[in-house]
Amino acid sequence: MNGYDALQTHIAQLSDLLNAISVLKWDARTNMPPGGAQTRGFQLATLSRVAQEHFVSDRTARLLDAAETEVAAEPADSYRVRAVKQTRQYYEIVRRIPVELTARKATLAPVSEQVWAEAKQKNDFASFAPYLQQMLDLVRQQAEAIGYSGHPFDALVFEYEPSVTAASLKVLFGELKAGLIPLLQRIVANDCPLERDLWQHEYPLDKQKAFGLEMAQRIGYDLERGRLDIAPHPFEISFTRQDVRITTRYNLNYLPMALYGTLHEAGHALYEQGVDPALTRTALTTDFLGQYPVGGTSYGAHESQSRLWENQIGRSRAFWEAHLDRLREIFPEQLAGVDPDLMYRSVNRVRPSLIRVEADEVTYNLHIMLRVEIEMALLEGNLKVSELPAFWNAKMQEYLGVTPPNDSKGVLQDVHWSGGGFGSFPGYTIGNIMSAQFLEAAYQQIPGLQDSLNAGDYAPLLGWLQHNVYRHGRAYDANELLVRSSGSPLRVAPYLAYLEGKFTELYHLP
Amino acid sequence: MNGYDALQTHIAQLSDLLNAISVLKWDARTNMPPGGAQTRGFQLATLSRVAQEHFVSDRTARLLDAAETEVAAEPADSYRVRAVKQTRQYYEIVRRIPVELTARKATLAPVSEQVWAEAKQKNDFASFAPYLQQMLDLVRQQAEAIGYSGHPFDALVFEYEPSVTAASLKVLFGELKAGLIPLLQRIVANDCPLERDLWQHEYPLDKQKAFGLEMAQRIGYDLERGRLDIAPHPFEISFTRQDVRITTRYNLNYLPMALYGTLHEAGHALYEQGVDPALTRTALTTDFLGQYPVGGTSYGAHESQSRLWENQIGRSRAFWEAHLDRLREIFPEQLAGVDPDLMYRSVNRVRPSLIRVEADEVTYNLHIMLRVEIEMALLEGNLKVSELPAFWNAKMQEYLGVTPPNDSKGVLQDVHWSGGGFGSFPGYTIGNIMSAQFLEAAYQQIPGLQDSLNAGDYAPLLGWLQHNVYRHGRAYDANELLVRSSGSPLRVAPYLAYLEGKFTELYHLP
Repeated sequence: MNGYDALQTHIAQLSDLLNAISVLKWDARTNMPPGGAQTRGFQLATLSRVAQEHFVSDRTARLLDAAETEVAAEPADSYRVRAVKQTRQYYEIVRRIPVELTARKATLAPVSEQVWAEAKQKNDFASFAPYLQQMLDLVRQQAEAIGYSGHPFDALVFEYEPSVTAASLKVLFGELKAGLIPLLQRIVANDCPLERDLWQHEYPLDKQKAFGLEMAQRIGYDLERGRLDIAPHPFEISFTRQDVRITTRYNLNYLPMALYGTLHEAGHALYEQGVDPALTRTALTTDFLGQYPVGGTSYGAHESQSRLWENQIGRSRAFWEAHLDRLREIFPEQLAGVDPDLMYRSVNRVRPSLIRVEADEVTYNLHIMLRVEIEMALLEGNLKVSELPAFWNAKMQEYLGVTPPNDSKGVLQDVHWSGGGFGSFPGYTIGNIMSAQFLEAAYQQIPGLQDSLNAGDYAPLLGWLQHNVYRHGRAYDANELLVRSSGSPLRVAPYLAYLEGKFTELYHLP
Repeated sequence: MNGYDALQTHIAQLSDLLNAISVLKWDARTNMPPGGAQTRGFQLATLSRVAQEHFVSDRTARLLDAAETEVAAEPADSYRVRAVKQTRQYYEIVRRIPVELTARKATLAPVSEQVWAEAKQKNDFASFAPYLQQMLDLVRQQAEAIGYSGHPFDALVFEYEPSVTAASLKVLFGELKAGLIPLLQRIVANDCPLERDLWQHEYPLDKQKAFGLEMAQRIGYDLERGRLDIAPHPFEISFTRQDVRITTRYNLNYLPMALYGTLHEAGHALYEQGVDPALTRTALTTDFLGQYPVGGTSYGAHESQSRLWENQIGRSRAFWEAHLDRLREIFPEQLAGVDPDLMYRSVNRVRPSLIRVEADEVTYNLHIMLRVEIEMALLEGNLKVSELPAFWNAKMQEYLGVTPPNDSKGVLQDVHWSGGGFGSFPGYTIGNIMSAQFLEAAYQQIPGLQDSLNAGDYAPLLGWLQHNVYRHGRAYDANELLVRSSGSPLRVAPYLAYLEGKFTELYHLP
């Protein structure tokens, strides 16, 4: 076997190990009985250790050298060259992380996640604090091991969004805030109650599930290679493009929760299911550092797809023009007399609120900025874990003008920190921005796109995204994907223009 | 770290890897979408390869040498000595199996199982035959690699039931047949239809599930460390005693299918959940060769517990005296006017039939003998895969006097061969025999046991089994467990006496 193929076989085994880790994590979050958390932690620790040892071995070094020689003269943007280049890049980083540290994080995570889930349910931050402290300590050690020139956050955000740093995020967030806050103020000033509250009825869960799955399939989610389950904190996870699973959660009254959760995660899943089959088990679908190995190129690129399908498609007027009749067939009594316009306005109410995953499109990014600021302060040592609840509440007041009545609806709402996912939040906002840039390009390049969307036909858009984004896996980074498809790197303007246009029309803003 | 502890840490990691394999297998059989089979095979192959390389490494050899020296003077039946001894025994065997062979079996199994499931559904043996042939070839290679003095079957059955051989099974089966066949003939001669067929009603599945789970918990199954799912071919699987899962399948009319499936698998689960916590992640809960690592000492010992709780408890007159009222609360219309005696007779009808897992206690072992004979013939090369359906049907006629109308109800009914589980069937019959021997001893040693069972109180029996069987994990082999608890090695007499007593009374035999 030659250099490149031998490296590929070696990386395929790493991919198998990381996918097995993902199966164990999916199971821990959907099915595992409570008693299993500790031994699951041991299993994850051993698998993480084995995976890391496999990757940082001398064998990898030898195979990399040979593969680099072999592809040296090939085009710089070919998949083969990219695969070798990324393997090298991550090899140099992962080598710096002590295997013991990886194993300790992996052991702690499922226990910590379970303690978090219980703490959230019981509104008991104090019981979770020691676990968060331990996780924070490990994450700090990881940042030191990886190294950084500016801020420790840089070492962590690299795992999720390699193209940004603490410094660049401050600029980006500033630009975004300058557009969002005036828009929010205009909306709030023009807000008035809807003529009817659709979410006072009951929507039986099995029917909610059926409609959500129908819509997910409609946008292109393939159930031959996927399934939908329940999780308190919804997520998508992939064990190769052949098995890409989504989860959602249900509220008997508030139908949008499960529906948009499903569309959001289905958007992630479209990305994973759409990767070129030739990239399966290669470096270009392997997240060498990832807690949840993703086939997509970064968390931001991934989130651009979940947010695009959830919001720009699922919360569009065209979506409800196309699909309200079907929903009314399923819930004829609850939705009697409801027209697409009322449904459109009902799923797009802008209101400063407490919960990130329930936030509207305008306020959503403020939730992210708050979290990123907190992470930076924790990493700097300027904020103690014990001070978190009060700090959180003060920031919520500052950014959104609301104060959580308890920690369950405040600092305890997200799973991320319990699992050690520091540095992952910026991906959400970068994803929002990317989604508008992609969609702007798609509208320019696909003839009659709006007509297709009006007809509930998502094949042209899916095809464009698959061609420009999904199929490449991790071959090109977020900015390369943007440049290749839209002609320019990340720009905030299309996103602000999208929000401005949508909500000016929706709220009849002056 | 000293010799024993260092070995233990090393084996704990092997245990983690094997448990991870089990999670992936559980998932493949309960949740995995069809498209995932092939890449799941790759994942299992890599994990199996990594696990085997971990175990047959020079490091294991060094650690074993040191541990053997350290425990040399300790009591021969102590857990420590047993752990080291078993590690050595399996180390010498597993070394002989090429890692490539393990990986090929692991890659093939999930695909082959899926093809089998589809073939069974479509009654299409021909589509499954090539996969069975491949698996048979791999299994033969494994037998040759392990080695044997008598029959290739000996090398395979060792994985499941180390104490038996092809030759010893022939003697055992002969003794059993000599008791079973006359009993069956007497029953058939005295058979007459029941006054009422309880299985013509419909029993909604959610209520069946609720009752099954209630009874499983009643006998001691701990849902904090377990869960119940659906699988077309029910099984129990353990990822340490902290996470022991069961599955069953449902028939809307035939309530006993799910109930006894649940009790059967819960019996397995009691064993796994009852292992001494100190043995978690040690050699004494590690099935070094196992396709489904079990904490119990052999498939027969394990099956003794599933069959004991399913049949000797669940299908007893006392069980229905204690629990029929509860079942009638759940199904008041379907079971109106039914008394414990009718229920008892309804779940104990003896009839030669087609499906092993639905067979009554008297005919069950004939299904096993047929399978074992077929496996031996396949391994000897005296039977070709293409000849299997006809051979199966002829044997069914010979042993049970019935002929399957199609292969779905014949040779395709069991999952075992598709996954490579040759050698596993004798465990069922040995389990039946052991169960009666254990129960005979329990009746002798537990004062008032029958009274407890009449009252639906299973704690005394569970406590006895836990003390004499479960807690020891794999520390003592099947015969040692029998000798320690009942005073003698495996004896057929208690089992034949149990069947003779039960069915003489039930059928008013002369």
